[in-house]
Amino acid sequence: MLGRNRYGKSRVRIFKVLGPSQVVDLDVQILLEGDFGAAHIEGDNSRVIPTDTMRNTSYVLAQEHLTSDLEGFAVVLADHFVASPQVVSASIELSARSWSNLAPNGFVASSGERRLARVKAGAEATSIGAGIDDLLVLKTTGSAFTGFPRDQYTTLPEAEDRLLATSITASWDYGKVPADTTVIWEGVRDLLIEHFFGDWSASVQHQGYLMGEAVLGAYPEITRIAFRMPNKHHLPAGFERMGLEDRGTVFMPVDEPHGDISLEVTR
Amino acid sequence: MLGRNRYGKSRVRIFKVLGPSQVVDLDVQILLEGDFGAAHIEGDNSRVIPTDTMRNTSYVLAQEHLTSDLEGFAVVLADHFVASPQVVSASIELSARSWSNLAPNGFVASSGERRLARVKAGAEATSIGAGIDDLLVLKTTGSAFTGFPRDQYTTLPEAEDRLLATSITASWDYGKVPADTTVIWEGVRDLLIEHFFGDWSASVQHQGYLMGEAVLGAYPEITRIAFRMPNKHHLPAGFERMGLEDRGTVFMPVDEPHGDISLEVTR
Amino acid sequence: MLGRNRYGKSRVRIFKVLGPSQVVDLDVQILLEGDFGAAHIEGDNSRVIPTDTMRNTSYVLAQEHLTSDLEGFAVVLADHFVASPQVVSASIELSARSWSNLAPNGFVASSGERRLARVKAGAEATSIGAGIDDLLVLKTTGSAFTGFPRDQYTTLPEAEDRLLATSITASWDYGKVPADTTVIWEGVRDLLIEHFFGDWSASVQHQGYLMGEAVLGAYPEITRIAFRMPNKHHLPAGFERMGLEDRGTVFMPVDEPHGDISLEVTR
Amino acid sequence: MLGRNRYGKSRVRIFKVLGPSQVVDLDVQILLEGDFGAAHIEGDNSRVIPTDTMRNTSYVLAQEHLTSDLEGFAVVLADHFVASPQVVSASIELSARSWSNLAPNGFVASSGERRLARVKAGAEATSIGAGIDDLLVLKTTGSAFTGFPRDQYTTLPEAEDRLLATSITASWDYGKVPADTTVIWEGVRDLLIEHFFGDWSASVQHQGYLMGEAVLGAYPEITRIAFRMPNKHHLPAGFERMGLEDRGTVFMPVDEPHGDISLEVTR
Repeated sequence: MLGRNRYGKSRVRIFKVLGPSQVVDLDVQILLEGDFGAAHIEGDNSRVIPTDTMRNTSYVLAQEHLTSDLEGFAVVLADHFVASPQVVSASIELSARSWSNLAPNGFVASSGERRLARVKAGAEATSIGAGIDDLLVLKTTGSAFTGFPRDQYTTLPEAEDRLLATSITASWDYGKVPADTTVIWEGVRDLLIEHFFGDWSASVQHQGYLMGEAVLGAYPEITRIAFRMPNKHHLPAGFERMGLEDRGTVFMPVDEPHGDISLEVTR
Repeated sequence: MLGRNRYGKSRVRIFKVLGPSQVVDLDVQILLEGDFGAAHIEGDNSRVIPTDTMRNTSYVLAQEHLTSDLEGFAVVLADHFVASPQVVSASIELSARSWSNLAPNGFVASSGERRLARVKAGAEATSIGAGIDDLLVLKTTGSAFTGFPRDQYTTLPEAEDRLLATSITASWDYGKVPADTTVIWEGVRDLLIEHFFGDWSASVQHQGYLMGEAVLGAYPEITRIAFRMPNKHHLPAGFERMGLEDRGTVFMPVDEPHGDISLEVTR
Repeated sequence: MLGRNRYGKSRVRIFKVLGPSQVVDLDVQILLEGDFGAAHIEGDNSRVIPTDTMRNTSYVLAQEHLTSDLEGFAVVLADHFVASPQVVSASIELSARSWSNLAPNGFVASSGERRLARVKAGAEATSIGAGIDDLLVLKTTGSAFTGFPRDQYTTLPEAEDRLLATSITASWDYGKVPADTTVIWEGVRDLLIEHFFGDWSASVQHQGYLMGEAVLGAYPEITRIAFRMPNKHHLPAGFERMGLEDRGTVFMPVDEPHGDISLEVTR
Repeated sequence: MLGRNRYGKSRVRIFKVLGPSQVVDLDVQILLEGDFGAAHIEGDNSRVIPTDTMRNTSYVLAQEHLTSDLEGFAVVLADHFVASPQVVSASIELSARSWSNLAPNGFVASSGERRLARVKAGAEATSIGAGIDDLLVLKTTGSAFTGFPRDQYTTLPEAEDRLLATSITASWDYGKVPADTTVIWEGVRDLLIEHFFGDWSASVQHQGYLMGEAVLGAYPEITRIAFRMPNKHHLPAGFERMGLEDRGTVFMPVDEPHGDISLEVTR
């Protein structure tokens, strides 16, 4: 028996010049759910909108409708596809690179972080959300990890004050879509940074909760925020093995293994 | 309010020499759910098993228990962590690189595909599954894509016979765990390849369904199989723009954008 | 017969806190040339400094000597290794991630570009240079590509004004090492950006030459600058295939294939 | 003053179906040197063959000439471009993925290693070479590292017998091009594997030299072979920190830092 299924197009790359000082640089993903049983079971494609058409349509609608309001463009895309009777829902995810405008018509790539927007439209009420991906932050003080349980395999020392680095992926839902989604996105980003740096935390979990609490407190239109925050470990460099003092200034960053912390904060 | 949350360690790399002609090369992910509210809200770590301890424990248990039965090792890991009273469930995911044994003690990396095993244990009944990641297959004939709906943005031609390539990610659940998980895994892999090559398909969706049907037909212990199969497009090289004949032998592979097809087949 | 050979340690990651508002985040590569024939031919390791020792030494010297003067630290590393009699030359390459200081002790990763420093010391005169890797820039106007030769396989249209994007990798040699290598590095970076945006160019080659000319003109201590500048193509989206007007605002960025342009400018 | 310069097209992807049981899957790089001063200095493109034309030409020539003789195809490409009077030399590099033929028209990706071919043609005598990239091999015994110098920062223990893993990149020159380049390539690959596993080695350097010696001994048409062999370290898992015995079967693979060994063997 055919179970859950969906299909679409991923990594459609769209670059649009909005004006002399503004560009949008997007990866688009479109995924459709609907009445596609015959395609799977009988090889009947009469209801299967080609993913190539989804690609073409993305560019056409981008030329007409894409602005800095990413959520607005995602709604246009979703509405286009759910207009086909066999489509029960369309899920659109947009991921935007950021560029800094340094001159008339001149842009430099800013950090690797991404602005995300997502819309799911169709049979059920349209849901709209936003997010940020790979916001890489580090603080040299203001974080601890102590008081944890110890067993025979625990070798981690207690740390009253440690360096903490993480790549924040945050994703939030809008109960009511804000008038200016870009302003809200920038506000959430600023708040995350402010609280990551400003709030003393007892763990990554604690840090994430404080950030989520701050966002929900400041933005009534946000009903829920979820985080994934890997612990980007910066380990001691091993001076003691050489009989040397570790002055606490030099670290060895490692990518793997890494702590992997996820949480959501809701109202 | 704190919502769903879990944490653990990802990308714990374990290499074990099982014998002169057998090694296991794993990435381990351990994620715990449980009574961690105080850690998030009050910064109380008294129930937070450090992820560093999870890492250490993985190596200790690997030295004692790791064999080619990956699911068995995942159960050992999961059971270890759910023994802590604050842990409600432990989810273990193992991803194994494969090596070909070419000489006594000598191994060459085989393809990039991975064997997956996953276990979730705890409050609810233990669930056990397996999978395969990035099984890259290509057939030069035996696949079509015709009869799809056309609108004003459709430019894709009908294809009675086309080259089809995909990277199969498959994931299946065991209703009853087989005596030899490795034998079953190899059997499923062989069946996927056999049906990918042997079955004429009308679309990636159709191809996936035929493969899932074959697996469920052959292995009663498997209750469900899910696929994600990106369409690794091989486009025409553009000869007609140069006034030349396209003989249908030369293609331009592209990574993006790509068709993105997911489905599950159940009993 | 043994020909050219060298060995060392790559991807030694060092993170150092220089102060509340300054960190250095480095990848270090150390490669030694010297009297290592017996190691290769006879398996005699008596002159082979272990690469593990190079790693340890990097951290020890970083704790003592690493500042924002990357070239200075590279000299310290090189001098350490060439002090061993069997070492004829030591080549050090440093690649630094950049972080923006946003709060006391708080940092956000800035763009993916890297500051490079390199030193080769030993038997010959010490050579010192610097560079920048992956400076991603884009201009929407101010670039052309016309007047090129056409043959039977040429389909590219002439472009009087086109969008131009590239990831600049630049590498320059110091005839005389500047007093403040960081100030010079920032000056070169600013100049590259200023001329990429400000100078009208007839090709990537022309653009690179103008940038190199500007750097050599402004900095007498720099004797040579080399560039590698892939053309990050932004292609038309294909509106004409759908019978639609292309308004010249929407593009399809592609990673492959890409134009690949290298040049050096010398005195 | 303009110094060395060259330009061309990289990552041109070509897939060709040679027959029901044979495909070629290539990345092509074309780089030209020649009389391009005016393009750089004056913005005069009249001698600048567009890289887009290089791409088109690659597909056209692939349709006519590409077979499993990669070096032969590289010569065809190089000769095409040096026929333009302004081109002094053309350097062609081909990198081929490998696929296993498992069924009529059915292929599975084999390991990530690549077959390389390279040709430089033009003013000087044509040079032809081949290579292999990322041949990942591991032996659990038959390798030592002892007798190395120790200083105050040396913490590495002597290892009479250790696990050795590396990703072999080899590159060789043909003095006389063999009649069947594929047969020779497979022969070199087999020899590298045979000697990596079969020869006891005192270091990666020693291992590389033994392999190079074997290749030059077996193939008189090869005049030189160069290796880059990173040491893919498999570290102890840290049992002693937990008061446990290390039985020498479980290791922690790490990607960074890594030993980085390069050498060439010549006649």
